[in-house]
Amino acid sequence: MNTQQKRYFLAEDDIPRQWYNIQADMVNKPLPPLNPATKEPLRPEDLFPIFAEELARQELNQTDAWIDIPDEVRDMYKYYRSTPLVRAYGLEKALGTPAHIYFKNESVSPVGSHKLNSALAQAYYNKKQGVTNITTETGAGQWGAALSYAAKVFGLECAVYQVKISYNQKPYRRSIMQTFGASVEASPSMSTRAGKDILTRDPANQGSLGTAISEAIELAVSTPNCKYTLGSVLSHVSLHQTVIGLEAEKQMAMAGEYPDVIIACFGGGSNFGGIAFPFMRHTILEGRATQYIAAEPASCPKLTRGQFQYDFGDEAGYTPLLPMYTLGHNFMPASIHAGGLRYHGAGTIVSQLLKDGLMKAVDIQQIESFDAGVLFARAEGIIPAPESCHAIAATIREANRCRETGEERVILFNLSGHGLIDMTAYDQYFAHSLQNYEVTDEQVAANLAKLEKVI
Amino acid sequence: MNTQQKRYFLAEDDIPRQWYNIQADMVNKPLPPLNPATKEPLRPEDLFPIFAEELARQELNQTDAWIDIPDEVRDMYKYYRSTPLVRAYGLEKALGTPAHIYFKNESVSPVGSHKLNSALAQAYYNKKQGVTNITTETGAGQWGAALSYAAKVFGLECAVYQVKISYNQKPYRRSIMQTFGASVEASPSMSTRAGKDILTRDPANQGSLGTAISEAIELAVSTPNCKYTLGSVLSHVSLHQTVIGLEAEKQMAMAGEYPDVIIACFGGGSNFGGIAFPFMRHTILEGRATQYIAAEPASCPKLTRGQFQYDFGDEAGYTPLLPMYTLGHNFMPASIHAGGLRYHGAGTIVSQLLKDGLMKAVDIQQIESFDAGVLFARAEGIIPAPESCHAIAATIREANRCRETGEERVILFNLSGHGLIDMTAYDQYFAHSLQNYEVTDEQVAANLAKLEKVI
Repeated sequence: MNTQQKRYFLAEDDIPRQWYNIQADMVNKPLPPLNPATKEPLRPEDLFPIFAEELARQELNQTDAWIDIPDEVRDMYKYYRSTPLVRAYGLEKALGTPAHIYFKNESVSPVGSHKLNSALAQAYYNKKQGVTNITTETGAGQWGAALSYAAKVFGLECAVYQVKISYNQKPYRRSIMQTFGASVEASPSMSTRAGKDILTRDPANQGSLGTAISEAIELAVSTPNCKYTLGSVLSHVSLHQTVIGLEAEKQMAMAGEYPDVIIACFGGGSNFGGIAFPFMRHTILEGRATQYIAAEPASCPKLTRGQFQYDFGDEAGYTPLLPMYTLGHNFMPASIHAGGLRYHGAGTIVSQLLKDGLMKAVDIQQIESFDAGVLFARAEGIIPAPESCHAIAATIREANRCRETGEERVILFNLSGHGLIDMTAYDQYFAHSLQNYEVTDEQVAANLAKLEKVI
Repeated sequence: MNTQQKRYFLAEDDIPRQWYNIQADMVNKPLPPLNPATKEPLRPEDLFPIFAEELARQELNQTDAWIDIPDEVRDMYKYYRSTPLVRAYGLEKALGTPAHIYFKNESVSPVGSHKLNSALAQAYYNKKQGVTNITTETGAGQWGAALSYAAKVFGLECAVYQVKISYNQKPYRRSIMQTFGASVEASPSMSTRAGKDILTRDPANQGSLGTAISEAIELAVSTPNCKYTLGSVLSHVSLHQTVIGLEAEKQMAMAGEYPDVIIACFGGGSNFGGIAFPFMRHTILEGRATQYIAAEPASCPKLTRGQFQYDFGDEAGYTPLLPMYTLGHNFMPASIHAGGLRYHGAGTIVSQLLKDGLMKAVDIQQIESFDAGVLFARAEGIIPAPESCHAIAATIREANRCRETGEERVILFNLSGHGLIDMTAYDQYFAHSLQNYEVTDEQVAANLAKLEKVI
């Protein structure tokens, strides 16, 4: 029996009033995104046709370390923030580890994941600018659900392209988006040129985030008063997510500890950046020794096997060129259940940090991820999202290492979302019908070789 | 924009250390449950074959107003309690009401509802007594999910009979129970005599809570070292749920208000009693004028159309005779999505309180309940369970009344669970394929007339 504190909350007054922009503090700044036609570095106004202006400015801001959170957004944060920082006593006991394991429980957001932190901000800035309609892509549907609700809050219409494999695997997420008033289409669809091109080549195509992004951008630029929004990858999305780490920093102080290791799953980087960047400023500015570990799926290993180069953010090549670790924007990931991690590239900030050795990445097989998720569910009572299972698996590896060495390391991971809408994945796990998928260095090289060298 | 506080939490030290047993304070105590063979009032030891001994003693305890929460249970409460008390600013704004609406958000429990409050207690007392296996029934699956996790926490095996209509409507809840390690069977099943009897008469029978209870009891009494547990109706279940109202009382004080009206949906009475009884002690002992409203489905209206009489708690007649408002234990409710409200009778405490005019009941049609649920989801971001939608509908009626009269009444309702596993119900709502069901006084009278007069 434990008599120590289990969960830590902040008073509403202590919810952060600013997001943290790590770009301002990085010694080596991310290389600039490029205009694909001119190969010139992008200016914010180049992004105005696609994004709300304030978001475009945030995207390229490399000078201001702190960005004010608008009152209207912060007031909506109060609907579910602070999220609890939780000491995982149940998991520690199940593992028999001397490690102290904490997790930031973003799954208690009303839409089930951390995605709402940026959705509210993006919807707000679009509304403020007079935009009436927003579009987006979604994989597993966590981002789509968050944006659907955020759009409703700020009175915007919302259209979502959901990756087809997830649309079929997780029908409840579509229902959730519709309950919040959004329209939802499976991607690739016949409603855009990008979708039609793919379906013509490959009628059974199950979609990818890269393709869904192309479709959403195409709809945005061809619809009056409509902008595109993105749930990860871009720097302004990670910026909004830093509310996670900023809260966690205060909450860890309440617990009287500081993390030795910080772990998050990795799709485009927003939940990883959200929890890691606020702590990383102490590493950059004060030399504090903390390990940062991104846990990606072995089936989509851009950080562990990808190349650092300029590439498109989407399948059709509508986006600017981004300097990133990538498997190639033509990469079609295996149909794993962690739909939010099925993306070919990493955000530009994380790519630079990885290149500079400030963080590391591990790859996790699908079955190991669900082994970890079930162990966690039974120990802590929370069924994690398939994406979050990757962070838990990486945490368990670290905790088991501590058991061997006897080290009392402090591990903090981000529980990015719950898995209640992903139960078919758990059914398949228990039926032993889940597969592992391997992507080799040779496959990545062959895939990248197919692309024109864009710069 | 509001700048006032949105959510209220208690420090872990302030989580209640005792449950409140309203039976001790009631002027007219509930009539005793009777042994069906002898018609003698039950003693605790008569219940020992079915229930853990401590639970049987709690069931019949009419003298101790306060029962200590065991440390082992309270430590597990810390995994998710206190649940937030939330000021529903979004809903107030959507309704344009001067009422102050608060809800206790039990949906943030890791299993998605208030049911865990009693599941942990019941699993604990069974474990303490050396029981190795527990059985139960579940409707929508909220109770089954809670008990499955609680059994895992305390190292018990768990078998759940889930009402067939819900088993088919909500397949993810079965998956959740299995993820926590429980075995789940659709009821009526062919694995018990009670189930076989029904299926032989009516092969297409979709089940009811009454039938599932019969099956679970039969399994318990025919299995060595196995006890039965129940998720509602009984007094010891309401007792454990008073942690909700006891927390809410402290949290309302933090908000500087006291409720004029307290509302909860009503199946067997545990979430209603849980939030209402702690406040009701001030009505009983100090004459405080507070309205208590139970919101039941029009398709299963035991409080608004049932008769107060002795009846069985289950379909097959395995339970003691309980003095309660009932539609008859042979009543087969319509297939509404609020599976947790599809029960023929009300707990003995609530039945007595209703008889004595200390509370009132309203009936809500299925479509009105989902109108309310969707409005709430879009205003507060939380998709409510179909059961909880009934409480929201009753709240909206009260809030609209306040808009007409201009009264600033303080309304508190219990959000007993989220609806993320119930999205097929929302799909049907949006497809306009949900039905209303009416049960008339004549139908109830005819149904009750079919029963032998048991006392």
